[in-house]
Amino acid sequence: MPAMNEETRKFQKELNAGTTALVLLSVLDQAKEPMYGYQIARLIEANSEDMPIMKQGALYPVLRALESTSLLESEVEPSVSGPPRRYYRITDSGRQTLEKWKDIWTRTKTLVDTILRGEE
Amino acid sequence: MPAMNEETRKFQKELNAGTTALVLLSVLDQAKEPMYGYQIARLIEANSEDMPIMKQGALYPVLRALESTSLLESEVEPSVSGPPRRYYRITDSGRQTLEKWKDIWTRTKTLVDTILRGEE
Repeated sequence: MPAMNEETRKFQKELNAGTTALVLLSVLDQAKEPMYGYQIARLIEANSEDMPIMKQGALYPVLRALESTSLLESEVEPSVSGPPRRYYRITDSGRQTLEKWKDIWTRTKTLVDTILRGEE
Repeated sequence: MPAMNEETRKFQKELNAGTTALVLLSVLDQAKEPMYGYQIARLIEANSEDMPIMKQGALYPVLRALESTSLLESEVEPSVSGPPRRYYRITDSGRQTLEKWKDIWTRTKTLVDTILRGEE
């Protein structure tokens, strides 16, 4: 991505604040097993085409925030290859919340795209 | 919209923070003449289907923020029917920024929708 000015950096950051939480809930909703941060980051990166827009470091505070409001829960497990890993899974409350957030996302997208397209 | 819990309110607020600025730049980019806040709010509302997600009161601080970074400029004009009105127009810098933001919006949408759809 070309160099960004201050306003564009702020725009990207604000847009990511909401969408990162949505993406994390969705990834863990679809996961067959609990996942740790780096695993989630790699999965998101694999879906990010050429230019990553959600940086790995930005995921961890959001994972912790989602756990603090009981939308996720986690457990630390030892790892053979390094420090222990924190594995996250979605809770029932997280699943219910995800459904509402998907609806809000769809309606926001529709509004923004209608405006961007302009009046016919 | 049904009653929202605290997390969902936060999600909606974060999502709106970025998209409101994008929508305002786009509306003023397409406007043939400078527009005042209430006019812009009504245009957005007219495009909002049944459930408004960008509240009028939330637009004003964003208009001011966009002006403070020179993406918009404004002029106060007297009004026959009430207090003077502040009319906003987009600047050249605002137009250039809008193009970048549209690109970021498109890439964010693609990523989020790819994740929500899940891996095939």
